[in-house]
Amino acid sequence: MHGDTRLAPWNGLSAPEMQLLQTTFWSAGGSRHGMAARLGFSRSKANSLIAGLLDQGLLTEAGPRESTGGRRAEHLRLHADLGLLLAVDIGATSLDVAVLQPDLTVLAHAAEPADVRKGPGVVLARVRELMRGLLQRCGAQPAQVLGIGIGVPGPVDFDSGQLVNPPLMPGWDGFSIRDDLREEYGAPVFVDNDVNLMALGELWRLQRQLPNFLVIKVGTGIGCGIVCHGEVYRGAAGSAGDVGHICVDHDGPRCHCGNVGCVEAMAAGPAIVRMAVAAAEAGESPLLAEHLRTHGRIDAVDVGHAMRAGDVAANGIIQQAGTLIGQMLASVVNFFNPSHVFIGGGLTHIGPLFLAAVRQSVYQRSLALSTRHLEIQYTPLGAQGGVIGAGVLAMHESLKVGRALA
Amino acid sequence: MHGDTRLAPWNGLSAPEMQLLQTTFWSAGGSRHGMAARLGFSRSKANSLIAGLLDQGLLTEAGPRESTGGRRAEHLRLHADLGLLLAVDIGATSLDVAVLQPDLTVLAHAAEPADVRKGPGVVLARVRELMRGLLQRCGAQPAQVLGIGIGVPGPVDFDSGQLVNPPLMPGWDGFSIRDDLREEYGAPVFVDNDVNLMALGELWRLQRQLPNFLVIKVGTGIGCGIVCHGEVYRGAAGSAGDVGHICVDHDGPRCHCGNVGCVEAMAAGPAIVRMAVAAAEAGESPLLAEHLRTHGRIDAVDVGHAMRAGDVAANGIIQQAGTLIGQMLASVVNFFNPSHVFIGGGLTHIGPLFLAAVRQSVYQRSLALSTRHLEIQYTPLGAQGGVIGAGVLAMHESLKVGRALA
Repeated sequence: MHGDTRLAPWNGLSAPEMQLLQTTFWSAGGSRHGMAARLGFSRSKANSLIAGLLDQGLLTEAGPRESTGGRRAEHLRLHADLGLLLAVDIGATSLDVAVLQPDLTVLAHAAEPADVRKGPGVVLARVRELMRGLLQRCGAQPAQVLGIGIGVPGPVDFDSGQLVNPPLMPGWDGFSIRDDLREEYGAPVFVDNDVNLMALGELWRLQRQLPNFLVIKVGTGIGCGIVCHGEVYRGAAGSAGDVGHICVDHDGPRCHCGNVGCVEAMAAGPAIVRMAVAAAEAGESPLLAEHLRTHGRIDAVDVGHAMRAGDVAANGIIQQAGTLIGQMLASVVNFFNPSHVFIGGGLTHIGPLFLAAVRQSVYQRSLALSTRHLEIQYTPLGAQGGVIGAGVLAMHESLKVGRALA
Repeated sequence: MHGDTRLAPWNGLSAPEMQLLQTTFWSAGGSRHGMAARLGFSRSKANSLIAGLLDQGLLTEAGPRESTGGRRAEHLRLHADLGLLLAVDIGATSLDVAVLQPDLTVLAHAAEPADVRKGPGVVLARVRELMRGLLQRCGAQPAQVLGIGIGVPGPVDFDSGQLVNPPLMPGWDGFSIRDDLREEYGAPVFVDNDVNLMALGELWRLQRQLPNFLVIKVGTGIGCGIVCHGEVYRGAAGSAGDVGHICVDHDGPRCHCGNVGCVEAMAAGPAIVRMAVAAAEAGESPLLAEHLRTHGRIDAVDVGHAMRAGDVAANGIIQQAGTLIGQMLASVVNFFNPSHVFIGGGLTHIGPLFLAAVRQSVYQRSLALSTRHLEIQYTPLGAQGGVIGAGVLAMHESLKVGRALA
């Protein structure tokens, strides 16, 4: 309905063939045998389907993986010739755009500071420029794009692709990024909350082997991606994981949401910066005062540097932020009993002490049964989590949509 | 492996026939047409399967339901001759046992006070007596029992059926109720946390139409049953929903779990009783003082009576408990974004003011997007929720186990 309808490369495949493509995508380099087992197909049925998909150039088979001991196991991947994915991670203060192959190999990547408060007109114009530039760098055409995945730092109505009252994104309320970008590429556009995409990225990295885990993003805000029963869980109204406004201090400062003592108001990036500036101005931290004098500003990572250089005030600020975040997490862990909590976002650059403070606070406040096997660590995908998650969204949803591209 | 193996009435059925039995159970009186639609079967396939199951006496077809306007729709149910279910709800201070038909019609029910702290020997001996008595009252034989479902007020390892460190059940740690009861009836025994069973019961009542909701039980303790993606969610270690130890006051009293300010220590039944006794002794409540003098004790429901009779102190106590529970729920609602929260357990007998206080507190503390469509109400199944949930567990799991009964 938007101009010419391009057909997806997988147009006309049977249901078992589509299942095989999807499973190949999610098991990133799995063997034929593993694929058959996952799908509950007989080995001969799997082999015949795979042979067909290899013939049609939809799958590719590469040499043996890192030795698994026994005989060589070829591994299957989605074929690079299927097309390309565009992945966009819009942060509150940053913009990441990448071109990926269907197996999520990153072909080109651009990252730059940005201010999401400038609104959709300015930000999406820049997104378009970056996408065009990156495709050119890859020598690729717009028509090769299979799907576009976009993460934003606010609540999204997943079905309509619209932002709903995003507190960090004034001017974007009710805006449909999907409709805005769909025309140019004739490819489907999928939009989700940035933390949901980080969760989706980790789920893909884990080949869906962990069914119940959380991803916490700590940056300008604090949000949580939830994986439950092996799927990203978005909640009844798409706002699940909005943990930034959980109260950790009934006598705490007022938050922009109207309540007091929200963990986001007391422990996210801006709160850390505020505490650091106060410490510098009060003469409690020579290092932070020096930094403020020289650069005119302090950011959260500077506080980490000061801490590593032995600054006592910086150390206290990071301990306090980690402890408050751990308090919020303790409530969430008691409720959800996840196997893993992965922490990502800008504040992870502060270093291991922050993580240690979070851990200590959670283990102290949660019930023994909830934490007996709980692992808390930084997100393994790290800074790439946003664009990888956006790539997973684009490929996974495009394969679900099926036949036509736009 | 436990004596003679009895075969289930559905032994030997095909996979589509088993799916039809399961769907009939979960759609409680659905029409042929609805059943076919739910299963993705053609109408003729569904009709032929249903005819076979009616012939074998596994399903029964009753007259039209309450008029739905158009032509009469027969509705299908599991046949009463399939056998019986035993449902047991072990509370901290009560015991409920019921005999149910496969469609969860209650044939006989016994409820009495009990003290779970007396340990498995005493409590399960009484459970056995009640089960035998109820079966006799129904004129039924032990061999007719298809499955036994049991709810307990503590964390259960669902796969092994063992209790894990149950704080309200000293002496039950590591005990397997399943192994203890399996011999007598030669039927499978399934054990779960009482709140998970309340959630399962409501899910059945709702015919699985609400995918994401919570059930909060407020009695001696406070717990939460979670339904996510249409299934009861038990967490990585089976302790999901353990919300009683979420902190609502960092300066609050110490809880038996070792932390301070747990909502359970400040707002569950024993806390309400403690506050009521204190108010009576301090001369703040003539009504509660009179009750204490006459009966030597006060329970939570008495506080509700005093409140309805206009007692200001009782009113304040119930307001405070509801507000604290609402504070805990606000965190949980921000995180989980459920469509509904159903509140059950002994404290619901206190009346509507308690619910009003909970609601007010949640709506004030949660984000607008999380509460826009949120409904908070008392559990529709009410006091029957425990045994209905245990019956759902017994029937659902027995149908999953399939062929042999024990």
